[in-house]
Amino acid sequence: MKMAELGEFGFIDRIRAGVASSAETAGVVRGIGDDCAVLELPPDHLLLTTTDMLVEDIHFRREWTDFANLGRKSVSVNVSDVAAMGGTPHHLYLGLAFPGTLPLEQLDAFVAGFLDACRFYQVTLVGGDTCSSSGPIAISVTVEGSVPKGRFVPRDGARPGDAIYVSGTLGDSALALHLLQEGKPVDPFLLERHINPQARTRLGPILSAAGIPSAMIDVSDGPVSDLGHILERSGSVDALVDEEALPLSEPFRALLQSDRKLLRLALGGGEDYELLFTVPPEREHLIPEAAQKSGLALSRIGVITSGSGILTVRTANGEEYRPARKGFDHFAG
Amino acid sequence: MKMAELGEFGFIDRIRAGVASSAETAGVVRGIGDDCAVLELPPDHLLLTTTDMLVEDIHFRREWTDFANLGRKSVSVNVSDVAAMGGTPHHLYLGLAFPGTLPLEQLDAFVAGFLDACRFYQVTLVGGDTCSSSGPIAISVTVEGSVPKGRFVPRDGARPGDAIYVSGTLGDSALALHLLQEGKPVDPFLLERHINPQARTRLGPILSAAGIPSAMIDVSDGPVSDLGHILERSGSVDALVDEEALPLSEPFRALLQSDRKLLRLALGGGEDYELLFTVPPEREHLIPEAAQKSGLALSRIGVITSGSGILTVRTANGEEYRPARKGFDHFAG
Repeated sequence: MKMAELGEFGFIDRIRAGVASSAETAGVVRGIGDDCAVLELPPDHLLLTTTDMLVEDIHFRREWTDFANLGRKSVSVNVSDVAAMGGTPHHLYLGLAFPGTLPLEQLDAFVAGFLDACRFYQVTLVGGDTCSSSGPIAISVTVEGSVPKGRFVPRDGARPGDAIYVSGTLGDSALALHLLQEGKPVDPFLLERHINPQARTRLGPILSAAGIPSAMIDVSDGPVSDLGHILERSGSVDALVDEEALPLSEPFRALLQSDRKLLRLALGGGEDYELLFTVPPEREHLIPEAAQKSGLALSRIGVITSGSGILTVRTANGEEYRPARKGFDHFAG
Repeated sequence: MKMAELGEFGFIDRIRAGVASSAETAGVVRGIGDDCAVLELPPDHLLLTTTDMLVEDIHFRREWTDFANLGRKSVSVNVSDVAAMGGTPHHLYLGLAFPGTLPLEQLDAFVAGFLDACRFYQVTLVGGDTCSSSGPIAISVTVEGSVPKGRFVPRDGARPGDAIYVSGTLGDSALALHLLQEGKPVDPFLLERHINPQARTRLGPILSAAGIPSAMIDVSDGPVSDLGHILERSGSVDALVDEEALPLSEPFRALLQSDRKLLRLALGGGEDYELLFTVPPEREHLIPEAAQKSGLALSRIGVITSGSGILTVRTANGEEYRPARKGFDHFAG
């Protein structure tokens, strides 16, 4: 069957069929099918909302991903932002613009991957919009979550003396992209980290419930850039990061041995979707329990000092340098 | 200045400068600038959320609109869905994908129009995402609103005996589009209705607070299609619409005199963003007060009967026909 035969409403019905009915989902009064979704927040919680766009040839390439993983990643990058506030994601909205010539099996694979990730993160698709486009595929995902009042973790709370922590390992996704761009073979672990990253939705609420982080962000643009956001927003602080303390995966270390320059990918590369957060000294003793509960390594990579927004990296032999702060700017000349 | 010089973050700062600070806006704990917006709902209210995409050459053409009105319309079509549930819109999220070559003054005009409409509807932009695209401009808008518990108006509540009402006038937007497509001159009133429609955000909550509608929808795909959604969702009901009762503007009537066939635009044409709702007989006496409070004409255009989802139109001389139910399907062959 082709999209032209199925039609817009047929496609929406197909999506709806894969979504659990409202009656089965806590907080969903009305899901897909009315002018708006109607939702109820848990009592004494704040609403957390974020939106992301993924555009073909900018955020993804058809030849480097499959549509099921593209669907999964569309969910992951979005719920990651809720985790980065210490909250729990609940509801998703999917906007989809694509050419009518796109094979229906690719669309079905995208939707299957998207709904698969919804189940994984225990979130529900409750609305969206589908339309045709003459150009590249454009995906827009909005997620709503919640956090108990007084528990959300902002970007602007880093203070001198705080330690800097990061979950999991850094640079895997950027290294995979680098190898793809160079046409080189990619280790399956690294590739998975790039095409199907997992948002740290368990860790975020564990950290906020324990009152551990003073500031938090997810690593989407790269640690240098994302830590930069924390410095900028917190004001009057610098950061000193230990190169030797950066948590690296085994496949990353293996390639690093033949090319030390790859280390820049662990500092400047994006899309790992790990959580990067600052911790006041008196709360650092709570880290091991949070690591154990979440099943993730939590690594101390540096410290916040008083200053003016400068990020310094210290190498193994004690030299210090300031890495170019350069996350991806969509329009930089 | 060009987008390449301003950069993504410069552009976001530019938008942020035009938005009232969180401190000034009720319910906004954190607006633009963190991983998520952080929001508080009014007590004992449900959350209403909807998302829409507008894609260049599908939803709009650069030569038929200006960017300021495109910005306004992006807000209007979205908040209209909240009004259609009987709710009040509060917060907006803007996703924007566009080529880096787009002149900055056009972007600025879009943002100015967008923020102008935000002020008009008393809603606040609290988040978004900006990225480059090699293809057509893609705009994604998500809006969150609220409605007192027990007051939201769904699509599925129409019952036999209910009267069918619509606000304002029908077909103006479709007539303007028709004239544009034919290359004919367009009356300024009709053009305004097409390029800068006003969502009925005052009327929606007035109707729901008074408990008037049993079902409601906004006229985006055209009355035949949108009333069709109400029939379909309500189940076991038909609708009989009086052609003579359709509320038409003076400019519409003037053109109708020379071409009776234009009447199909009042039935099948979309994008008027009026509210179409059904009213149980015992609540019809409340209509005049709601009309007066909202400053809008509310016209009784037909009646719901028991049946199986069939929409019948009765002409002035008593003939009856079933209009082809055909809203815009993005992928229909």
